This record gives sequence, structure tokens and C-alpha cells, in this order.
Amino acid sequence: MRLPFVTIIALSFCAQALLASGLWPIPRNLEAGNQLLKLSPAFSIQLHIPSAIEQPQDLLDAISRTRTRLQNDKLGRLTPGRGEEDREALVAAPSLLRLTLGIKGDGPLSSIASESVKDIANRDEKYSLVVPADGSSATITASSSLGLLRGLTTFEQLWYWVPSSPSDGSDVEQDGIIYAHQAPVAVKDDAPAFPYRGFMLDTSRNFFSTKDIKRTLDAMSMSKLNVFHWHVVDSQSFPLEIPGFLELARKGAYSSQDIYTTADVQDIVKYAAERGIDVLMEIDTPGHTAIIAKAYPEHIACPNASPWNQYAHEPPAGQLRLASPATIDFTVSLLSSIAKILPSTMFGTGGDEINVNCYDKDEQTQEDLKKSGKTLEQALDTFTRRTHGALRGFGKKAVVWQEMALDHQVTLANDTIVTVWQSSADTSSVVKKGFRVVHAPSNYFYLDCGGGEWIGNMAGTNSWCDPYKSWQKAYTFDPFAGLSASHAPLVLGGQQLLWAEQASPENLDPIVWPRAAVSAEIFWTGPRLPNGDFRNVNEALSRLHDLRFRMVQRGVRAIPLQPLWCALRPGQCDSGGLPSMIANLGVRRLLKRVRK
Amino acid sequence: MRLPFVTIIALSFCAQALLASGLWPIPRNLEAGNQLLKLSPAFSIQLHIPSAIEQPQDLLDAISRTRTRLQNDKLGRLTPGRGEEDREALVAAPSLLRLTLGIKGDGPLSSIASESVKDIANRDEKYSLVVPADGSSATITASSSLGLLRGLTTFEQLWYWVPSSPSDGSDVEQDGIIYAHQAPVAVKDDAPAFPYRGFMLDTSRNFFSTKDIKRTLDAMSMSKLNVFHWHVVDSQSFPLEIPGFLELARKGAYSSQDIYTTADVQDIVKYAAERGIDVLMEIDTPGHTAIIAKAYPEHIACPNASPWNQYAHEPPAGQLRLASPATIDFTVSLLSSIAKILPSTMFGTGGDEINVNCYDKDEQTQEDLKKSGKTLEQALDTFTRRTHGALRGFGKKAVVWQEMALDHQVTLANDTIVTVWQSSADTSSVVKKGFRVVHAPSNYFYLDCGGGEWIGNMAGTNSWCDPYKSWQKAYTFDPFAGLSASHAPLVLGGQQLLWAEQASPENLDPIVWPRAAVSAEIFWTGPRLPNGDFRNVNEALSRLHDLRFRMVQRGVRAIPLQPLWCALRPGQCDSGGLPSMIANLGVRRLLKRVRK
Repeated sequence: MRLPFVTIIALSFCAQALLASGLWPIPRNLEAGNQLLKLSPAFSIQLHIPSAIEQPQDLLDAISRTRTRLQNDKLGRLTPGRGEEDREALVAAPSLLRLTLGIKGDGPLSSIASESVKDIANRDEKYSLVVPADGSSATITASSSLGLLRGLTTFEQLWYWVPSSPSDGSDVEQDGIIYAHQAPVAVKDDAPAFPYRGFMLDTSRNFFSTKDIKRTLDAMSMSKLNVFHWHVVDSQSFPLEIPGFLELARKGAYSSQDIYTTADVQDIVKYAAERGIDVLMEIDTPGHTAIIAKAYPEHIACPNASPWNQYAHEPPAGQLRLASPATIDFTVSLLSSIAKILPSTMFGTGGDEINVNCYDKDEQTQEDLKKSGKTLEQALDTFTRRTHGALRGFGKKAVVWQEMALDHQVTLANDTIVTVWQSSADTSSVVKKGFRVVHAPSNYFYLDCGGGEWIGNMAGTNSWCDPYKSWQKAYTFDPFAGLSASHAPLVLGGQQLLWAEQASPENLDPIVWPRAAVSAEIFWTGPRLPNGDFRNVNEALSRLHDLRFRMVQRGVRAIPLQPLWCALRPGQCDSGGLPSMIANLGVRRLLKRVRK
Repeated sequence: MRLPFVTIIALSFCAQALLASGLWPIPRNLEAGNQLLKLSPAFSIQLHIPSAIEQPQDLLDAISRTRTRLQNDKLGRLTPGRGEEDREALVAAPSLLRLTLGIKGDGPLSSIASESVKDIANRDEKYSLVVPADGSSATITASSSLGLLRGLTTFEQLWYWVPSSPSDGSDVEQDGIIYAHQAPVAVKDDAPAFPYRGFMLDTSRNFFSTKDIKRTLDAMSMSKLNVFHWHVVDSQSFPLEIPGFLELARKGAYSSQDIYTTADVQDIVKYAAERGIDVLMEIDTPGHTAIIAKAYPEHIACPNASPWNQYAHEPPAGQLRLASPATIDFTVSLLSSIAKILPSTMFGTGGDEINVNCYDKDEQTQEDLKKSGKTLEQALDTFTRRTHGALRGFGKKAVVWQEMALDHQVTLANDTIVTVWQSSADTSSVVKKGFRVVHAPSNYFYLDCGGGEWIGNMAGTNSWCDPYKSWQKAYTFDPFAGLSASHAPLVLGGQQLLWAEQASPENLDPIVWPRAAVSAEIFWTGPRLPNGDFRNVNEALSRLHDLRFRMVQRGVRAIPLQPLWCALRPGQCDSGGLPSMIANLGVRRLLKRVRK
């Protein structure tokens, strides 16, 4: 007897789901079953540590958030019945009464916040998680509070919800049943493949409120991202209040409301750190600084020079007078003033897109160069040594864009972190110089690509980095492509990025989520799934759907990746069956041709 | 003496602003000054019609909405000072105390709602508007309540807001000053160049709530769009409650919450009509109907057939058994049941992407064809005559996709409206057959293009209609391209469209706005600006910014088109100065090359 096709599809769905579940990033070691397990209405989370050890408040807060999310997520399973099909079996399913958090070792326990801002090489995010199927206590063990947080995040992704019906009996006082469908679950020593897993937000081209940033940090934490690269200021606006330099924001912010006060910055840094995220702030120098001219015109070369195209990559033109001793002092003082209130061991100094013509046409810069007898590159070297040296004094390593390593003759410390953005093909050149790299290539990870050109006067032109970097495209990124094995240890990780020329609070979530979670899995999970297969978009799709729907339940306006019909039926909207050559042409376009 | 470049830019900005203002679509006749005019705190809007004539309630409601928006918009002018630069001059500026609405003629005055659903050829949207600069009464005159609504919409776009400061004197009891900066304004006999100016939303691939749809209708009304093409059901879900066919939604909606009840439909239709918008509902047939199999399996050929690619353009496969007399009766009855509760004179019957293989492999269809002695095309002709004939019985003209006119041998009534979607190049073939057309070409007006492929198993593939259709691309659309003068009258207008495979309430606003307002101007204003110049993206940008910012003030999450720095400084982010060849390559990419 031949099974009807519907049955075959159903079987293949089950096989997929057993591996996949709703975990994102998928743990590196995972064993999961297919048994139902309810969350008891009396469920509690207990932190088991020796009484002599102080319980960090932010860990207790994280536990409290997990408890709240378990109650509030109310995510129906992504099946055609949205979990209704589980209702009958749930009556007899065991209930989980307790999750116990345990710490290895008996030394003092640091707060999550202090663990999150440690040097990137020393962060301990490892955890193990066991959820038995019989209702006996679940456990998370780790050797740091940060590891416990990662375990809690994984635990939260196991649970679904189905509304109560009168026949549910004892659970009827609740409005629904919270349950897992893949018990037992065992995650052993899950830890990230790469230490740096970031997301970059530009808050200068358009402004985002503290509330927008916190929501972004919440979403980042859902997929265990651990670096918020905050490109806070640029040539268009200066929304950052810096102690001792208040005029910069007063004159350079878009409005008095569009400013991050020092208290806001500290609030954001604390909020992030408590969620396992280090804030890497960037003050891009010496380019991308035109707006400084509003408060300190003496430090900016070619301010608002026209046509801007000859003086800058974007309007308005204007760069720090890097050859001026006074401007170097100003910059050192500026960076120091903000860097010293930030706990991170990293600080971004930029260094991208320096426009030589701007300096060539700036009288003062030419005089400064003549006086010092330096070339522009030599002046840039001095500028860089001074600014990086000042940051080092505050215990911070400089993070720079790739041009500083590849295009200029500047001396960078060996521990400088280089962010590759122009193309993934440039990474090998950077590691050959011995620097550690963060992958941020525009050809995979730029979230703003594909939205049309924003420069005026260019009817019908596409964005400069077209096409749109779909989640699938990003997911196929290989962190080691083109690198020799000896250079592999220099790859710190990577990040997706939102440049905000065409972004604002109105479209922040839809542009970023769930796409920015793609690099979270690339750099946490590494190349292979827990079953040994290579990661691939076909397997990932249903889990990414799950993450997206959970984000929506938590108030993050993440976009749908497919019609809901497809999201509920993994595999049924695949192009399978067509030769891949045909698939690559686009199914519908081809069918249209074939039909005629 | 040569003026510094900053001054030159400022002058050119003024010249632009005098023409442009914040009006979208720009009226076909417009004279505007540059004087400031405050809105008096005692400002009122009065409807002056003979006492014998009844005042339509929805016109009174529209007046009330205008009054509320004038108070609530609080839109700062898009200048670097956001209107602060006007404050001093505002003290002495005259105040407008009254707007008077007058009607030509003395017959009975119909409601806006009844005017909005008239046959497309007979809608009277014409109005005139005068706003004197000296504070004497402003007037809107029209010969219909719908015309008055259009005039109110234009009037609303004249006003800006600047917060009060203690020195403002008499206005200090208000929190700010509401004012126009382009008085006097005279708009004479403004009326649309094309009668059909639509927007299409697909609510089947993913569901949108009534609230989402109403917000969309509000935004449509802001730019005088007048047809909401509601692609309400499709193969993926059936969210529509149809009297007598309740099982369709009960079994075919994504959930019991994801249904438009009859009351919802009537609510949406009324809400739309009161805002000048006709609801053109589409029940796509005979394709795009797979979901009907859930409630009526007997009427669907090749339900869920696999691989779907061979049976449909999108999963899941399934089409109405167009050759079955019972299915024709069912379809006629279904369309009639919903059509008769809708006031529009148009109804969409679809007709796109019919898959022949689905019918070739369907035993019952083959039997039905054999019994009747018809070919598939002849059966489609019968199906079409019957369904269109039933709609005609309810006073409705059929609206079909282009395939019905171009790819099939069916007899369509002369008054059938044909929507061209595959390519703008297909329009000429349709008009040559004598049909009226609505422009909806995927190569200009599809809002979903450029977001990556959503079909599974296709890593890194772009969307089938890549690239993203930017507002600039859409704006360059020529309604008469490739048409002879004699065929021009057959062009009814056009619409932008959102197919919702990758859209949901989370990204609805950002995908649609302000882009969908582009066709609103193309089809209202026609090819020329009021000063006689051809419409062009360079002039349009600052006005479209204005519309976008006003939308945001009204709760529509429209995307920013540029950094705010650029939005406040028209022209300063243009690529002007570069040869257009260079501009077309993308400024930054080129600069990067030049720099190296």
C-alpha cells in the first residue's frame, strides 16, 4: 500500500521537529525527546548556591523575568492546530514543579552585569540544562551567573501555550496550559563557538529613543547576542551628552529630546549588561564628524563643503583636523570623557572613509602638516596613537573599521580589533596582518541594503549595496572562508548592522528582526548542528519562525518570513522537487515562462 | 562679490518651498505665497448650506476630524529650526478664525459615503480652496460632500506647529502655535487626473486586523486615494465570513480571531466610504482557492497536490473545479452572497495564474469536460460568464487580472476592468482589446519586491520581482507609456499593492508608507506640477518627507526616506554636480573606487 502524500509530509515534519524545537541559537550539544511536559501552576525557579555566597541581584531579576515570560509568552506551537492537537494528551502529562539553578565551585558569584563586560576572551557563557520528562526537577548548571542567564534563555524557548477549554479539568483556573513538547531535554556544556556576537545600531542618521534601544537589547538577549555596537554619533547628528562637552549635543542633536544624557547611557549600559550584553560604543574619528563643527568649528576641516560628494562619502562633509595638535588634544579629551564612564574593555574609534580631498583643501590642515613636517598619513598615525593610547589608559582596546588596517600607514597595537565591512573578501588581508577581526561584511550582514537609494536626485537607483541581505543569504556566511587554519583563531565573531539613513523607530524592528538573529546562531552554534549535520537554511527556517513568533509575543515587531500557512507546515512551502538550477532562477518566474 | 555656498543653497531651498509646501498629492492648480498665518485658538469650521438641505452626518464627522487633526498633528516644519525661526514673526502674523465650506447648487447633499461608492466615472471629487493671508475667512467650495472632504484634506496639510515659549504672549495658554507659512493659498478646481487611485492589500497570506485596515484607510485618505482593493482571501487562508458559507472561515481562517465577520466588513466599508474610499473586494477565482477544500472539498481540484510547483504558482495547490456545474453554482452563490452586501459598483473575480496541469490531472474535471464536450478554455468561458453575470445582477462590474483579457479565450463584457500586474509593457495589449485598465505593474508598483525569496529551500535567492520598488522608481511611472492617444481614455488609474507573503501587522506600515502615496500623486496630479514643469523626484522628495512626518504624527509608522539632517535641508543631500552617468552607478560605490 502506498501512503498518500499528506502522510509522507507529516512524517517528514516530525523528523525535522525532533531535532529542531524552538531553540535559537541551537545549542551545540542537544538531546531532545518528544514527550509532553506541563509547567505546574506552582512552578518555581530556585537558585541553589551555598548560603555564604551572595546572590547577585541581577541574577535574581533574570530569574524573575524568566518566570514572567513563561506566563506571558503564550506562544501557540507552530502547527496547523496551534497546539490544540496536544490538548488531550496534556491531561495525563507530568508537570514540572521546579527549575534549580546551580553554580559549580564555591567562590564568590559575580553579577551578570560584571561578567558581561569582561574582556571578550574571558567571558564564561557556558551552561548545561537538563529537563527530565517525568516532572522531576529541571536543572541549569554553570560556573558563572552569565552562564546561568544563557541557560535560562534556552529554557524559556522550550515552552508553548494552548488556551484552556472546559474539559481541561484541574488547569481550568488558568487561562491556558504552558507546556513543552520535546521532553526530555539535555543540553551539555553549551557555549559559544565565537566570543563576539554583536549587533550594530547607528543612532545618528536618525534617532532612536532609549525605549527603542532597550527593546532591541531584549531581542538581542533572546538569541544570546552579547555585544551592542553603538555607532552613537556621526556627521548628521550628535545625540550624545558627554561630560565636559555638553555643547556637542546641545547644538548637534536633532532636538533637545533627541539626546542620550549621561544617565541614559548609564541606564542603557546597565540594562544591557544585566542581559548579558556588552556595550561597545563608537565615536567615529577622524571622519564622520561634521556635526562637531556646530559646537567646535575650529576642529573641523571642510565643514559642509559643497558639492559634498567631493569631500565626504555622505552629506554633510566635515572631518576632524587630524593634523592639528589642538584638535588631537580635543579628541583625546572627548574620547576619554565618555570612555571612562563605560565599563566595556572595548571602545570604537572608527577610522573609516577618511576623505583626503577634504584635508587637501583645508588651509589649516595644510599649515599644520607643513609645520610638523608630516605627511597626512603620518599625521593620522600620530592622531591614532594618541587617541588609542588614551583609551588604553582606561583599560580599553580600540575597535576600528578595516581601512585603518588595510588602507592607511598607521601603527595599531596588536590587540586592536578590526571590523571588516566593505566585503567579506577583505578579511584574509586583515588577519594576515595579525589583527583580530569582527565580521561585519556589507555583502552579507548589512541590514539596510536593498531599500532603494536615499541620496536625492537619483530616480530609480537601487541602494549602493543591493540586493537586500535576506536571512538566508546571511545564514550562509562562512566565518572561515578564505582563511588559513593558522589565522582562524583571529576571528572573534561577527555582527549584523543597521545604518539608519532609511531607518527610524517606525521600522527599526521590521528591518532588524528576526534577521539579526542569524549571526547570533552562526557565531554561537558554529558550522554544525547538534546532530552533526552542517547548519543549513532548510533546517533553520522553522526554528527562526519560532523565534520570530516569540519576539512578536514579547512586543518586538519582527517580520514574518513566510505566509502563516507555511510557517505552520515546515517543508510544505519548499521548492523541493525542482532541480536546483531551476530553483535558483526563482520558481514563479520560471513557472510563468513554462506556462506560456 | 560671490555669495558663500551656504547662502546659495538657502536661496534655492526657498524657491523650491514656495512651489512645494506640504501638499501631497499636489493640487493641479495652486498658487501659494510665503506669508505666515496663525490658526486662531477660536478657529472654527462652518458648513454653509441652505437650511433646507440636510447636513450629512459623515461630512460633519469629517469636519470634526479636521479640527482634531489641526490641534493634534503638531508637526514641526521640516527646517533645521523646526519652525523656531518663525516664532518672532508669528507674533505679528494675522490669525485665521474661520473656514467656511460651501456647496454649489441647492439640491440635496449626499453623504460622503454614498458619493464614494458611486460608479468610478461619476465620482465628483472636485473642490476649490482659498486661504487669504490677512486672516479673513478661508473657504472650500465643491459641488459634492466628497469634494468638500478632498478640500479639507488639502487644508489640513497647510498647518505646522511650533511649541510655545514664555515670550509668545497671548498664545501662551496654548502649548504651541499652529500656523501656515505659505499664505495666501489658492487652489482652483482641483480634481483628479484619473478616477481610480487605489491600494491593494492581501489579507490571506498573513492576517491583518480591522484596526490595521482602518489605519491603512486613514493613511490612504491622507493622499486622496479612493479605492481599497481588498484581496481578502486566497489559497492560504479564508478570513472572510460569508453569509450562508460560514464554514469557509470557520475551517479556512488561520484562527477564530483571524476572521472578518460580516459586521467587520460592513464596519470597514462604512469607515472607508466616509473617508472617500470605495472598497473593491476581490474573491480570486478559479485559481488561488485551495483553502476552500477545507470546507467544500468537492469543489476543489488538486488540493494540496505535491510537489506544489507543478500545480500552482504558490503553495498550497488547489483550484475551483471550473468545469463542474455544481461548482459553478457554488461559486455564483458564494460571490452573490458577499457582493450583495457591498455597495461598490466593482467586484474583483481574479482570474490570474490558472494552472492547467491541476485540471489536466483532476479526474473529475476531465469527466466534466468530457460530459459537456467543452475544452478547458470553453469551460472557463462558461464559468466566467456565469460569475460575471451574477455580479452584474447586483449592479457590479467585474474587475479581473490581466490574464483573463490576454491569456484566455473568454468573453468579457466591454465594461470589465482589467488590472495589469505582470509588467507595465502589457498594458497596450489590454487597451487594444478595448478594455479599461488599472495600472498595477509588478515592475513599478509591487511593494513586496526586494525582500528576499520566501519559498523554502532557496538559500540566498532574491525575491522574484527584485529589486525593491523604491518610491523614486514608482514615481517615474508613466500611465500613458506605449499607448496611442486614442487608447488613453481607457486608463482608469492605478494602484500600488502589498502581497503579504512576508508582511504582517508588524511591518505593514513600514512596507506601505509613504511609498503607496506615490501612485496617489501620479494619478491625482497627472504629469505636470502646477507651475507647468513635469513632475519629478527632485521636486517631490521634500513634499513626500512632509507627508511621511505627518503620517508619523498620526500614528502611521511610515519609514524615513533620508537621514533627518537631509529631510530638514532640501537639496543638500542631492547628488547634484556629478554627471548623471556617475550618479546612476551609485555615488558611494564610485567614490570608493575613485578614492583607491
